Order: sequence, then structure tokens, then C-alpha cells
Amino acid sequence: MAGKQPVAIVFDTFGSVVDWRSSLIADLTAYGTTKGVSADWTALVDAWRAAYHPSMDRVRKGELPWTRLDDLHRTSLDQLVAEFGIKGLNEDDLVHINLGWHRLHAWPDSVLGLTRLKSRFIIGPLSNGNVSLLLNMAKFAGIPWDMIFGSDLFGHFKPDPETYLGVAKMLNLRPDQVMMAAAHNGDLGAARRCGLMTAFFPRPGEYGPHQKRDYEADQDWDIVATDIQDMATQLGV
Amino acid sequence: MAGKQPVAIVFDTFGSVVDWRSSLIADLTAYGTTKGVSADWTALVDAWRAAYHPSMDRVRKGELPWTRLDDLHRTSLDQLVAEFGIKGLNEDDLVHINLGWHRLHAWPDSVLGLTRLKSRFIIGPLSNGNVSLLLNMAKFAGIPWDMIFGSDLFGHFKPDPETYLGVAKMLNLRPDQVMMAAAHNGDLGAARRCGLMTAFFPRPGEYGPHQKRDYEADQDWDIVATDIQDMATQLGV
Repeated sequence: MAGKQPVAIVFDTFGSVVDWRSSLIADLTAYGTTKGVSADWTALVDAWRAAYHPSMDRVRKGELPWTRLDDLHRTSLDQLVAEFGIKGLNEDDLVHINLGWHRLHAWPDSVLGLTRLKSRFIIGPLSNGNVSLLLNMAKFAGIPWDMIFGSDLFGHFKPDPETYLGVAKMLNLRPDQVMMAAAHNGDLGAARRCGLMTAFFPRPGEYGPHQKRDYEADQDWDIVATDIQDMATQLGV
Repeated sequence: MAGKQPVAIVFDTFGSVVDWRSSLIADLTAYGTTKGVSADWTALVDAWRAAYHPSMDRVRKGELPWTRLDDLHRTSLDQLVAEFGIKGLNEDDLVHINLGWHRLHAWPDSVLGLTRLKSRFIIGPLSNGNVSLLLNMAKFAGIPWDMIFGSDLFGHFKPDPETYLGVAKMLNLRPDQVMMAAAHNGDLGAARRCGLMTAFFPRPGEYGPHQKRDYEADQDWDIVATDIQDMATQLGV
């Protein structure tokens, strides 16, 4: 990438840095086997993720006070366990399953690419996850963040402007010194409207057979890369 | 250390992890030489640090609204440059000097000890510095924090309970699952009153010839170590 470079790069996390779907399906399937609880874990994971945006919208619309994503996940999980008629899970099991979002694996290029980027830039997640979720995930997956920008630091979920602008303010940077990196065009559009730089890389396998969008860049983002390793190469590190 | 272990360990930073006095004296002396500005930089650094607690007390007492440490430092610096009669510094120079607090070197055992501790525990600074200060310092000194607990996350300076309890809340831990580590008995006393575990190691050279206290532990802290490497050894990592 010729020209202007950012000082900090913040990453969307679920889907962009970590493969939530494959990780959760494997994690829950193994747990179900251990516990002797049978269920269509793949369908549960897909339904759980489908509840993600509607659950955050309840906070955005003021139907709920500020609620951490861990707690939104738990509410959705309880509903889905009932809907799916899954039997035999006690409270400890539900706590463990809910923390499955803390045990997500990175895509193969993520840790290598982020390690390269960290040598020159401040890097962190800017995610709808809460700090504790993102921190446990980083420890689990070996992701070398400099700082964790959880949504609880801002009391807002993306794409609310308070998140993108909150990072810049916290880092004492102008918005155009911060780059948002994501596999989701919508996230980048919101970041660009706040004045941030933008980087896109596709994750065509994020939703498995249910992927519907984000196969390619839909705007002229500052960087369009194949993955985070390629993004590091384009940024010259 | 036999028995209970923490999940997260948070560190006082100025004096405990980094050697602010030697670092700043060397940094400012070199800068003064480059710029042809003569001053008693050692005396300036000592006076600057002496202004630290009184400046935070203005916030605690409500004389000032919440103010980041970078901005308190700048107010104190401007006053001291006038008092010391230092001539020839323009605005860019003052900005650069003020960011000297972002360019502090770690004590020799700090990075090695923290790297060992990071393998088992969540580690972060719990400091009166703001996030951007602590993050730039970590990049400069190679400190491998998992998360940066700057005072601006809580809108409070230590020893206000909101800081110690705020870390536990943000990590979704009980206070007794968090250990405060510091070279300052007062900081540990405040943390213990909030229910945190405690670790002490002395930094007898922190204030150079002006050191007056904290040569040794004044309570039976959960860990009393010689430095952060020894602390890691006592925690079995």
C-alpha cells in the first residue's frame, strides 16, 4: 500500500479473525458426546448466531439496558435449548456451552498476519464481544493483541459510531489514523462514515453453506486483501 | 506459592514495571542536548513526579473533572518549565517531552518475568496512566500485556476502589481471583481492602537518592518477591 498508513488497526473478530462456526460446532459436538447429550449441534450453532443481531438490536432500541454479549448469548442459548428440545444439560453445562464463544480458533492466517502487523502498528479487536470474552479468546487462540477494545468499554455495539470513534479517542488519535479491518462490508461502511481507514479481506467460509454476502469488497476500501497475511504484505510489514 | 492462585494479575506500572526516573532523565537530557536547551533535567524529572499525586488529588477532590494523566502531566510540565526558567522550548518540544512518559524502559527482570506469567495468567497494567500512554509504553518497552487497564477505563485513579473492583468486574472475576502486584505497599493495601490478592517486590532505586519508603513489605502480602522473575518462580511458571 503506497501512501498514508494508519497508526492503529482494529479488527472485527467473529468471522474476520476467528472461525466461530467451525469452532463452535466442533466444541459443542465433542461436549455433547462427552456428556451423552444428543442434539443437532450444527443447527443450534447456526440458530444461535442468527439470534446475534436481533439480540443486540434489543439493546440498541432501548428494550434492554446495556448488556454484555456473554449475557445476550446466554439468553439466546436458553431459548434455543428449549426450542430444540435438548434434554440433560444442567446449569454448569449451559455455562460451559455459553463460554464456547471464548474458545474460538483463529483462521490459519490470522495469528501470523497479526504478529507481522503488530511489529509496526497498534492492533486490537473492535468487536461486539465483551472484554472478558475477547481476552479469553486471545489467550485460547494465541492472538497477540496489544489492547482489547470490547464493546463494554463503549457501552455500544457496532455499527454505532461510539465504537469506532471511541477507539480513536481512547488512543488519542484522529479517526483517520485508525484502520478498521473486517470481512464484512457493512462494518467497514460504518467505520468509513466515521472517518476511519478501511481494510477488507473475505472469509467465504464464515457461514458454511449459509453464506450469503461479503464474498468480495463492495466499495473501494483502502486495502482489499485476500487475508490478514496479504494485508500485512500490502502494508509493507 | 502453595495454595490458591489468581486468574489475572494486574501490575502497578510506574516504578514497579518501568524505571520512570532513569528513563526520563536520560530521555530529556539527550533531547535537551539535541535541541541546545540547557536545564537541570534531573531536578525537573524529580519535581515533575512530585507533582503527580497532588495533580491527581485535584481530580479526586472534584476541583477538576476527569482528566487523563497525559493532560495532568502537561499542566505540571508547563508550570515547571516556567518555575525552572527553561528557555527555548516550543510547543512541539513540550509535546515531545510530555510524551516522555510513553518512552519508559522496563526494569531488567520485567519483560522476562511478565512473559513467564503470561503463559498461565491474564496480565495487564492497572495504572494511573491512560490507555494510550500505557499502550505506547508497552510497544516502546516490549511489555507483553494481554489487556491495558488504564485509569480512563474507570474514570478513577488508584487507590480509588473503582479501579481494583473495576478490573474484576471487566474480567467477570471475583476480586479474590485478581492479584495486584506492585512495588508500593500503599497500592497493595488499597487492593487488599477491595478483596484482591497481593504481590510485593521492592524497587529500591525507583526514586534514586530520594527514595523514602517501600524498601520492604509492610504487610504479609500473598507473595513477597525480590522482583517479577522471582514472582513468576513463586507462582510456579
